[in-house]
Amino acid sequence: MTSSPDPIRALTSQLSRLPGIGERTALRLVHHLLRQDRALLHALAHALVDVAEHVHECSRCCSLTANEGVCSVCRDPRRDDTVLCVIATMQDQAAIEATGEFRGRYHVLHGTLSPLDGTRPEDLRLQPLLARLQGDDKSVRELILATPPSVDGEATALYLAKLLGAHGLSLTRIASGVPVGGDLQFADKPTLARAIALRRVL
Amino acid sequence: MTSSPDPIRALTSQLSRLPGIGERTALRLVHHLLRQDRALLHALAHALVDVAEHVHECSRCCSLTANEGVCSVCRDPRRDDTVLCVIATMQDQAAIEATGEFRGRYHVLHGTLSPLDGTRPEDLRLQPLLARLQGDDKSVRELILATPPSVDGEATALYLAKLLGAHGLSLTRIASGVPVGGDLQFADKPTLARAIALRRVL
Repeated sequence: MTSSPDPIRALTSQLSRLPGIGERTALRLVHHLLRQDRALLHALAHALVDVAEHVHECSRCCSLTANEGVCSVCRDPRRDDTVLCVIATMQDQAAIEATGEFRGRYHVLHGTLSPLDGTRPEDLRLQPLLARLQGDDKSVRELILATPPSVDGEATALYLAKLLGAHGLSLTRIASGVPVGGDLQFADKPTLARAIALRRVL
Repeated sequence: MTSSPDPIRALTSQLSRLPGIGERTALRLVHHLLRQDRALLHALAHALVDVAEHVHECSRCCSLTANEGVCSVCRDPRRDDTVLCVIATMQDQAAIEATGEFRGRYHVLHGTLSPLDGTRPEDLRLQPLLARLQGDDKSVRELILATPPSVDGEATALYLAKLLGAHGLSLTRIASGVPVGGDLQFADKPTLARAIALRRVL
């Protein structure tokens, strides 16, 4: 496309590196941006720089934060120090927070063990978790293993259970089965099989 | 989502203003960016600022350019000055350029007439077009009306034909019909009807 001036091509190329955004979508986004007030471009650029310069991992839970040192959840004194929920990603943390049902603390692993993707234990935030449990967070009584109920997530939960079994903690795993409001006939086979296998006494 | 630190929320909100990007996709993009080298965030921000500060309309064809004054197509001496192709958008220009079949000049209207969207003749780059034809570009013999074959595009072409009819120019319209390699059975009704109505003698 010889008619695209260079800054447009450069921005298109930058945007098309993002997941789910191809060359054509990137070009559509750029032309949308060009039709807007230039202030919007500056605002977006500023937001990017702000994230690049101010967001870092919380020194306690490894979640991402713009606070100095620890994040707002770790800082909140109303949180229950006895329950620690171990999750794979910040998006999962956001999803749990959105339920409003959990008032304990979090620890973000930033991934799950995955032999296929080459994610090994040393790629996850396991050392900071062990350091917390042996150091500042001695009051933790229960560890909820909330990695996803996928092959990699289950493997990560099992690995954690083995690693932390000797710490005298109560280790729990989030429930997995047919979703609330879901239809049995539309549930996939592994989910339905698990729902039956993990049935509970009423 | 109380766990999202503010710069992340700000960037998510900026990204979710883009067309086709909802809150969830924006958050996915932000978390993708956070997993990358921070230099990538800076590069994207820099590309945005570069577009905001250096891209402007070509003073001749109204296309967007980072050149001083006129764009590279208007500047190219090998282009045919006798044929001027009027298009609705820069994307359309890029599509025509990609065919490699057109060596004339362009004029970008930046839209089509649309009573529904409230786009009136004064919102298009018609004055610059008239000024070109009466001024620097007296050598133009043929004007190809290449607005899209949609309701708005046809209306724009008709409006232009009426406006420019008295200029002693040859006015042409791009062909519209069943796409090359297309199947008649899968062509939509208006396209097939037009392909029959506008049939040509072999």
